Amino acid sequence: MTAEAAPETLRQRVGRLTDSARFRNFILGVIVFNALVLGLETSKTVMEAIGPPLRALDKLCLGIFIVELMLKLYAQRLEFFRRAWNIFDAVIIGIALMPTGGGLAVLRALRILRVLRVVSVAPSMRRVVQGFLNALPGMGSVILLMGMIFYVGAVMSTKLFGEAFPQWFGTVGESAYSLFQIMTLESWSMGIVRPVMELYPQAWAFFVPFILATSFAVVNLLVGLVVNSMQEAAGEDAGAATDDYRHEVLATLARIEQRLEALETRVDLQAEATAPNDPAIPEDDR
Amino acid sequence: MTAEAAPETLRQRVGRLTDSARFRNFILGVIVFNALVLGLETSKTVMEAIGPPLRALDKLCLGIFIVELMLKLYAQRLEFFRRAWNIFDAVIIGIALMPTGGGLAVLRALRILRVLRVVSVAPSMRRVVQGFLNALPGMGSVILLMGMIFYVGAVMSTKLFGEAFPQWFGTVGESAYSLFQIMTLESWSMGIVRPVMELYPQAWAFFVPFILATSFAVVNLLVGLVVNSMQEAAGEDAGAATDDYRHEVLATLARIEQRLEALETRVDLQAEATAPNDPAIPEDDR
Amino acid sequence: MTAEAAPETLRQRVGRLTDSARFRNFILGVIVFNALVLGLETSKTVMEAIGPPLRALDKLCLGIFIVELMLKLYAQRLEFFRRAWNIFDAVIIGIALMPTGGGLAVLRALRILRVLRVVSVAPSMRRVVQGFLNALPGMGSVILLMGMIFYVGAVMSTKLFGEAFPQWFGTVGESAYSLFQIMTLESWSMGIVRPVMELYPQAWAFFVPFILATSFAVVNLLVGLVVNSMQEAAGEDAGAATDDYRHEVLATLARIEQRLEALETRVDLQAEATAPNDPAIPEDDR
Amino acid sequence: MTAEAAPETLRQRVGRLTDSARFRNFILGVIVFNALVLGLETSKTVMEAIGPPLRALDKLCLGIFIVELMLKLYAQRLEFFRRAWNIFDAVIIGIALMPTGGGLAVLRALRILRVLRVVSVAPSMRRVVQGFLNALPGMGSVILLMGMIFYVGAVMSTKLFGEAFPQWFGTVGESAYSLFQIMTLESWSMGIVRPVMELYPQAWAFFVPFILATSFAVVNLLVGLVVNSMQEAAGEDAGAATDDYRHEVLATLARIEQRLEALETRVDLQAEATAPNDPAIPEDDR
Repeated sequence: MTAEAAPETLRQRVGRLTDSARFRNFILGVIVFNALVLGLETSKTVMEAIGPPLRALDKLCLGIFIVELMLKLYAQRLEFFRRAWNIFDAVIIGIALMPTGGGLAVLRALRILRVLRVVSVAPSMRRVVQGFLNALPGMGSVILLMGMIFYVGAVMSTKLFGEAFPQWFGTVGESAYSLFQIMTLESWSMGIVRPVMELYPQAWAFFVPFILATSFAVVNLLVGLVVNSMQEAAGEDAGAATDDYRHEVLATLARIEQRLEALETRVDLQAEATAPNDPAIPEDDR
Repeated sequence: MTAEAAPETLRQRVGRLTDSARFRNFILGVIVFNALVLGLETSKTVMEAIGPPLRALDKLCLGIFIVELMLKLYAQRLEFFRRAWNIFDAVIIGIALMPTGGGLAVLRALRILRVLRVVSVAPSMRRVVQGFLNALPGMGSVILLMGMIFYVGAVMSTKLFGEAFPQWFGTVGESAYSLFQIMTLESWSMGIVRPVMELYPQAWAFFVPFILATSFAVVNLLVGLVVNSMQEAAGEDAGAATDDYRHEVLATLARIEQRLEALETRVDLQAEATAPNDPAIPEDDR
Repeated sequence: MTAEAAPETLRQRVGRLTDSARFRNFILGVIVFNALVLGLETSKTVMEAIGPPLRALDKLCLGIFIVELMLKLYAQRLEFFRRAWNIFDAVIIGIALMPTGGGLAVLRALRILRVLRVVSVAPSMRRVVQGFLNALPGMGSVILLMGMIFYVGAVMSTKLFGEAFPQWFGTVGESAYSLFQIMTLESWSMGIVRPVMELYPQAWAFFVPFILATSFAVVNLLVGLVVNSMQEAAGEDAGAATDDYRHEVLATLARIEQRLEALETRVDLQAEATAPNDPAIPEDDR
Repeated sequence: MTAEAAPETLRQRVGRLTDSARFRNFILGVIVFNALVLGLETSKTVMEAIGPPLRALDKLCLGIFIVELMLKLYAQRLEFFRRAWNIFDAVIIGIALMPTGGGLAVLRALRILRVLRVVSVAPSMRRVVQGFLNALPGMGSVILLMGMIFYVGAVMSTKLFGEAFPQWFGTVGESAYSLFQIMTLESWSMGIVRPVMELYPQAWAFFVPFILATSFAVVNLLVGLVVNSMQEAAGEDAGAATDDYRHEVLATLARIEQRLEALETRVDLQAEATAPNDPAIPEDDR
């Protein structure tokens, strides 16, 4: 009703509230508290002792989050859906509201994902994730290359070793997983390649190049990240100072040149002005 | 025939076609489509259902690639063989044309390598691979050093542990593979060195230094890559700007100096011009 | 008593002693000697031969350390507790003074921690550790993010796989340990994920993203460290020189501009001075 | 005798020979050839077929190396022993000359180390190794810190787990090896820490911090290497150009300032020269 009475002002007041640092810190507190509650819920003994109140507290936290989202939605209206982090929060809350009966029991475990809301609420955390997301496009082609290597590798290994080792290379999906394990170098040789080589002695000719190729790609990704944050770090402090300095130097040089030009013209004028004097003097003598 | 009629123009037209972005994107599409087809061929159920049409589609894609190569070959004539990427494409297509009967069944699996043509077709992918290849010569001596460490290590381990552990160090080749596994640190101790140490308690004196040496070499390679792309990254944006700025500063300074020189001569001339006046004035007084 | 007689001077003399390089080197020597003694104590044969004297030497070293601390405490008074490294030393010595009977037998093993005092005594070592500690705050949010990923991962894996695999995911603590092992990639697949996937075929959808997320966070930490020491290294040598140069350039340019301004005014004055001549000449003619 | 007749000239001639590129390439060829021979010696079948001639060729190569050393020794006299690489070569050759009977059979395997002479002969390889050796001192304190962590860790683990797990932590030496394996993360958890934790549930409190500490130290070493070669790379190309530019700018600015000063004095002189005219004019009017 009040919303009808003075929607604008109320909207603004709600917006100021949801954007205020105090509100954010309160939400952060709720998130941390909720994380502890969900952590305790994993212990049987604790649940037997104080299970119901814990569930109640969890529901309370969830309620607070829903109210928060509602307030933001009310304050920002359609703007709400333009902010990626809002969608992120909404999805995480949505998971908790889904029915957890039947085969969806897994969703009960996903409630802990709410803790990830810290990332969307705490600015410093946001920056880390944002920084990573910003670096992604620059690494796009490397990631594509990687994906291609994996796809080619998965299809080839399925065709080559699928019949003999279905547990590792039965389908393209299983092969992709096995290749991921091999890329992480986890018992790639003793666990997989040596057994394979007993049937196909040349198998190393497939796996060793694959390891080298993927490692190279991974290195490229890391290098990309390093170079990226290097330049950012350098750009921030050094870059700005350098640009200021250069602009000042060039500006000063330009001014000096203009002054010199002006000076020349002045001197020339003077030269003309004094020139007629010379012939005048002999006339004087006469 | 038309080629005889007006070979030049036709050549040029074909060349413009094969170089056009539309043509390239079309080929890219065919490659991706072919990749999916070859992926589906790995699934038994799919093959039972729609095996023949899939094979036909694969043959179609292959045909398109062959036509593409022919067009390029016709348009570029001998130039064709001077471009490394053309050779790369030709080899990959060639593999698909080889007879896959008998012991060459493996070649059927190599058809998926066609997907790698994406690298030769998509410029962004090309750049990544090219960047890596450009970095190689700078790392040449490190790679050589690495190869030497491996060769020395393989010969030594074969001589030292070959009789006792033929499954790992029977021949120089097997030793090299085992040493590669050890370099990747995959169950190097539990899987290989501890068993060896039960017979040769001093074996660690060979393997631990080998691990340190190869890790150092690998680190050197990575550092080389990092430094390389660092300088490139820096060189691109910063370097150019810096050079422009410096040239401008030096040019301006040069101009200023010339102006000053000119100004001096002017002032000197004037000084001479006005000098004769001075003696003339006392004469006036008389 | 003497302390009462002339506390200041004695305090100062003791302070000078404890700060002197000779004293520090003596303590370093005692630490190294003590390290060897404690090393020998681990060998049964040695203990049977010369056990008692070794224990005595160990006690002697401990005594020297206690005296050192006392002297420092006397010289620096409350200042003593403001220096982190002093607390560090005091704690390490304190461990050795605890009763090692009963379940505290573990404390006998902690005596070797005394060797870590080298870090607090040798300046070069201190710098390394300090450098790392200085880099920490900059990585604070990444470490927080990491902790969050681990907590979320531990709670989720406990809920999802706790019943089926109590040995790995029985409690949040056990899950955290297992996830740390998985982060280090140690037999994450063959040892843990593949067995889990036999019950929960979708388990990879939890573990693979976890590996990617933690690896990304680790990479971020490393990048942070690299960038950090990079800037330090760069800042030290290059930065200073650049600033000096720039100040000189700007100062010189400023002087040049002033000189030009002065020159202009002079030339103008002269122009005015010579200007009246011109009208005077026709008067002359009359 | 001729040496007596004209020792100087002969010495110089020999010196010129041993330093010549042709001689170096010849030795490189012998080394590579010898490497192949020693590689073939590892194959039983080859040895049965052409064992004796291979051994003869090996002896021949050894003879050539000895003559090379003699020539260098003759040409450089005591200088010879001042060059580290000469000592390196002499030791490697010396190994081959040792009696290989009895328990020294291992020395036969060390003959392949001769291949490492490539490093001392090929300049590009030398540079890589030299670059690494140059980086070492800067990493001295980190290496020391690492050694300390290992010593403390080895003594502690021996005291804590020695009785229960003699195969891993029986002696300080065995513990050091096990800790090295744990540092490389090779089956540290499944292979060692989990079994240990069954007896000592708190064992993770020792091993996890150890892993973190050593990883941190390793990272520090890598960062040191990166920063090192970074600065070298940067210093070489960019640094020089920058210095040249700066010197030119400062020099030009200095010249400009001098010119301006000169100009001012000139203008002043002129001003004085023309000044007397002014009073003269009213006189004229009279």
